[in-house]
Amino acid sequence: MAITGVLRPGHVCIRVLELEPAVRHYVDTIGLTEVMRDKAADGSPRVFLKGWDESDHHSVVLREADESGMDYMGWKVDSDATLEKLSADVKASGLATEMSWIDAGEHPKTGKRFRFTIPTGHVMELYAYREATGCATGYRNPDPWPDDLKGMAPRSFDHCLLYGDDLDGTYKLFTEVLGFGLSEQVVADDGKLMIGAFLSCANKAHDVAFIRQPVKNKLHHVSFLLDNWGEVLKAADIISKRRVSLDIGPTRHGITRGETVYFFDPSGNRNEVFSGGYTWYPDKPVITWTDDQLGTGIFYHDRKLNEKFLSVFT
Amino acid sequence: MAITGVLRPGHVCIRVLELEPAVRHYVDTIGLTEVMRDKAADGSPRVFLKGWDESDHHSVVLREADESGMDYMGWKVDSDATLEKLSADVKASGLATEMSWIDAGEHPKTGKRFRFTIPTGHVMELYAYREATGCATGYRNPDPWPDDLKGMAPRSFDHCLLYGDDLDGTYKLFTEVLGFGLSEQVVADDGKLMIGAFLSCANKAHDVAFIRQPVKNKLHHVSFLLDNWGEVLKAADIISKRRVSLDIGPTRHGITRGETVYFFDPSGNRNEVFSGGYTWYPDKPVITWTDDQLGTGIFYHDRKLNEKFLSVFT
Amino acid sequence: MAITGVLRPGHVCIRVLELEPAVRHYVDTIGLTEVMRDKAADGSPRVFLKGWDESDHHSVVLREADESGMDYMGWKVDSDATLEKLSADVKASGLATEMSWIDAGEHPKTGKRFRFTIPTGHVMELYAYREATGCATGYRNPDPWPDDLKGMAPRSFDHCLLYGDDLDGTYKLFTEVLGFGLSEQVVADDGKLMIGAFLSCANKAHDVAFIRQPVKNKLHHVSFLLDNWGEVLKAADIISKRRVSLDIGPTRHGITRGETVYFFDPSGNRNEVFSGGYTWYPDKPVITWTDDQLGTGIFYHDRKLNEKFLSVFT
Amino acid sequence: MAITGVLRPGHVCIRVLELEPAVRHYVDTIGLTEVMRDKAADGSPRVFLKGWDESDHHSVVLREADESGMDYMGWKVDSDATLEKLSADVKASGLATEMSWIDAGEHPKTGKRFRFTIPTGHVMELYAYREATGCATGYRNPDPWPDDLKGMAPRSFDHCLLYGDDLDGTYKLFTEVLGFGLSEQVVADDGKLMIGAFLSCANKAHDVAFIRQPVKNKLHHVSFLLDNWGEVLKAADIISKRRVSLDIGPTRHGITRGETVYFFDPSGNRNEVFSGGYTWYPDKPVITWTDDQLGTGIFYHDRKLNEKFLSVFT
Repeated sequence: MAITGVLRPGHVCIRVLELEPAVRHYVDTIGLTEVMRDKAADGSPRVFLKGWDESDHHSVVLREADESGMDYMGWKVDSDATLEKLSADVKASGLATEMSWIDAGEHPKTGKRFRFTIPTGHVMELYAYREATGCATGYRNPDPWPDDLKGMAPRSFDHCLLYGDDLDGTYKLFTEVLGFGLSEQVVADDGKLMIGAFLSCANKAHDVAFIRQPVKNKLHHVSFLLDNWGEVLKAADIISKRRVSLDIGPTRHGITRGETVYFFDPSGNRNEVFSGGYTWYPDKPVITWTDDQLGTGIFYHDRKLNEKFLSVFT
Repeated sequence: MAITGVLRPGHVCIRVLELEPAVRHYVDTIGLTEVMRDKAADGSPRVFLKGWDESDHHSVVLREADESGMDYMGWKVDSDATLEKLSADVKASGLATEMSWIDAGEHPKTGKRFRFTIPTGHVMELYAYREATGCATGYRNPDPWPDDLKGMAPRSFDHCLLYGDDLDGTYKLFTEVLGFGLSEQVVADDGKLMIGAFLSCANKAHDVAFIRQPVKNKLHHVSFLLDNWGEVLKAADIISKRRVSLDIGPTRHGITRGETVYFFDPSGNRNEVFSGGYTWYPDKPVITWTDDQLGTGIFYHDRKLNEKFLSVFT
Repeated sequence: MAITGVLRPGHVCIRVLELEPAVRHYVDTIGLTEVMRDKAADGSPRVFLKGWDESDHHSVVLREADESGMDYMGWKVDSDATLEKLSADVKASGLATEMSWIDAGEHPKTGKRFRFTIPTGHVMELYAYREATGCATGYRNPDPWPDDLKGMAPRSFDHCLLYGDDLDGTYKLFTEVLGFGLSEQVVADDGKLMIGAFLSCANKAHDVAFIRQPVKNKLHHVSFLLDNWGEVLKAADIISKRRVSLDIGPTRHGITRGETVYFFDPSGNRNEVFSGGYTWYPDKPVITWTDDQLGTGIFYHDRKLNEKFLSVFT
Repeated sequence: MAITGVLRPGHVCIRVLELEPAVRHYVDTIGLTEVMRDKAADGSPRVFLKGWDESDHHSVVLREADESGMDYMGWKVDSDATLEKLSADVKASGLATEMSWIDAGEHPKTGKRFRFTIPTGHVMELYAYREATGCATGYRNPDPWPDDLKGMAPRSFDHCLLYGDDLDGTYKLFTEVLGFGLSEQVVADDGKLMIGAFLSCANKAHDVAFIRQPVKNKLHHVSFLLDNWGEVLKAADIISKRRVSLDIGPTRHGITRGETVYFFDPSGNRNEVFSGGYTWYPDKPVITWTDDQLGTGIFYHDRKLNEKFLSVFT
């Protein structure tokens, strides 16, 4: 296959303070489908969800906890052999800590996962198998979209933006060990300091992004994919109709060109729904944003950062 | 890199009966940018073009000839090593004929190309190098789109749909030798005969498609990428404003879910501009269309094939 | 008020062959709201419906009958005084036949109606009162659209296009007696014969249109208003998802510029959902389409009339 | 005609501090067409402009002056008789001051205008004649939009929002004398005080709006009509590409449901481009916004007023 190694962000586990309001948010407002519930090993209840266009069993996990934020993000790789190779490479790199294998079945319908902590403090996982229980339109003479869509009805979990201190280490791990490419970067100090890295493992403008901030293991937002700018307006309308806490938008990002709206789940985790972007290839020249233009890069229309973007995260 | 091997369709060379009307069509109506002109080895004049969002030097070549159709389609691979390996694999496969190396420079700003004929009679090329002369918005604090767009203003050349007889051989070559995946297929005879194959080398719903027809080396259409359904309407309006020959649309494809309009260049070659589709991955279950639903697969709204779709090609 | 006289098309009564399939079509597929049911004076069952953004009690009436088509179209006028004056003017004009008053209450929540037959054979009504039972979003701090929309979810019944023979008489009646303006016309015979008249009683590009055809009292289509071209695509998708009979589209009309899709109800009555158009004023110059460009006027992209447009009506 | 009396806002005269930057803004950025230039009676240079879909000779006048703001807004009425009647009614109402007739020709291609000052301090004009020099697409087999559109390319000047103190007087004048209807209102003090009035003279959700503020004769914004939400995004992108001062948006208004972006011309006058809204009729129940929901009414997504909305005007 021409797409090899790490395929895509396969799951994100989000901590929520109360499960039921969180489920109402992710199911009724955002429009994900609840797939099943269980309890984590420590007894905390979990809910598994997915977007209507996702084939694998689940992509979003909500776990009830005392503090909001992200437990971990998981990456599906193309094969067991790649899982073995990349886990060995991560170990050999000296860039990761707290490495362990999670047994098959700890996530339902999912094989074993290699878990490790990256230099910015985030927990990442690699796995090769999750049962393809199927998307909502099926695979035989399918309609372009299913009946009974709810809320914003994103197609799929798409990416996370994460805050952390050792951006250099995380960048090195993702590009040199895991095979990601740099689609866009933000630089300061006349280009001598990278303060933002937008990373792609396939064709999307980004699969994960990191912003240098003097913190460890922080989540800026979890993002879901919409079809178009009209759907972004519908999502923004739903945010107001349902009295959800809006962050900013609808607007366009300069970085990745995406059309976007940001808002918060009931536990204070930031969500994004977005559309647009471009098809990235590894031979595409890297796009560089200078810190004096960071406002335009983040919010293309406002052309300035709002305080919340930098100071509110979980 | 997680995208390896064949990256994307890098060029298509289209034969046109008269160069100037063709240039007016591809530049003024479609909105590609003319990059340069030269003459092919046989003296026939050529024009090189690209979409505004493409980094490499060119992607579309118009060559004046006595007969319309497609001379060849070229695929950019990730490295010289891959070029060597894939060319050897193609030779070893026994599936290709008329193999040869084209010298670096025969296409401007382009390295050597390995040319071969596939079982359906089409000429394909692999190459590893083309100078990244840059897209229209640049790579430093770029705007999301450039000034002075013309016509339909597609971002890029996207894919071709081709007609030919030995679909099995071509399918085997693309999937087993070149590493493509099958995103969607059309089957007849209770599923025993594949009559259409939609193939992806990366994340797009298709990079090339083949339809089984009792002909050799025929072009059904060359397709260009638009941003959204609103741009498809604008394109359809431009088709009428400029009295271009419309084929069908605006409409939606069932296959790939794309939003589309088909039309003809002055030489009778069919063009498409489209938007939409989905993000394909190699572990996504294959979508299968049965021949009784082929009409719906091709034109989702009309739900029937028009005669022209099957009988008009170049 | 600056809008005086005839305000808008307030109702259309459509004959359907079987009530239940018709209700499923107009409610589940199109997305109108069922308001109530009763029986007409002759005992035939009726269903009253409206779009989500309409304030008055109902706008669409389905009546079960042996033959499909349009029973009558009703026009709301601004006051009882206007109703008296216009009914007298219609009588005095000599252009109408079969004039009568329908008692208040024959339509629920509706005042008395003046019914008359126009020269093309269609039955028209004028009325001044219908209870404003309210639109779905209410009138106090309203959201821009309601929850629980179904199907295509048009805002409102918008207009009808009608076929008939004595276009000159009907045109005279609407413009000279009822105060309509001509927004666009189609002419033949070097402009000497009007074959199509698009008439507006307020600001819309048309509230009713008549095409000269050698028939009496025929319905070409009943049209409902969507918000935008993206909704037209969604409607066309729903047509295919629900296996509704498509006529043509999505496409654009040259006449009125509207973005449209045509389809049929289970009784063979043609429906349209559309968006776009322009704000018409009585001092706007009339747009004229010549019969050689009628195809472009009707279907701007295809630029030719399909046979069905002229020959299929109810 | 069913639209009688005051037809529409026919012109607005905007004061700009320097003519050339203003022309570049209104022509190159917004995309109005410059029609002609002259000098006002006091010698100050003027430029006349219009949108591509407007039939009359001009709709926007820029006048170079020492202070920004609005000189006057003009209303086209349906006939000379109406002009006579309404001017007499305004005089008789006792609600207007500084009444005068402006000679035909003071505005090019325009008849005499009746000028008066309303209780909020704004100068209004009525006129019955302006030459219909034609819209850009013409009136014979027209295309739906013209070639060579520039910038945001609005169809037309649409409305103004104005700030002033004596809202009651102005409301009374527009509704009781000029025949406008109230489409939406904002109320305070448990509904006892009207603080905002959105007024329509035909079918649009508003043709002019007034906000109660302790000032005289202030302009909040001049608004231009776009086709759809996609065009609003394009406009917002152009604002950033051309480094225009953004106010807020893209977003939706709760009041009128419009999709909008606000920005400033080089003299500090606020502009809006918008799409959407609804078809208003005089029998539609009035929509009421309570002052506690004013934020949501103005900016439906943010649900709070920004300081600039209330404090920045010209």
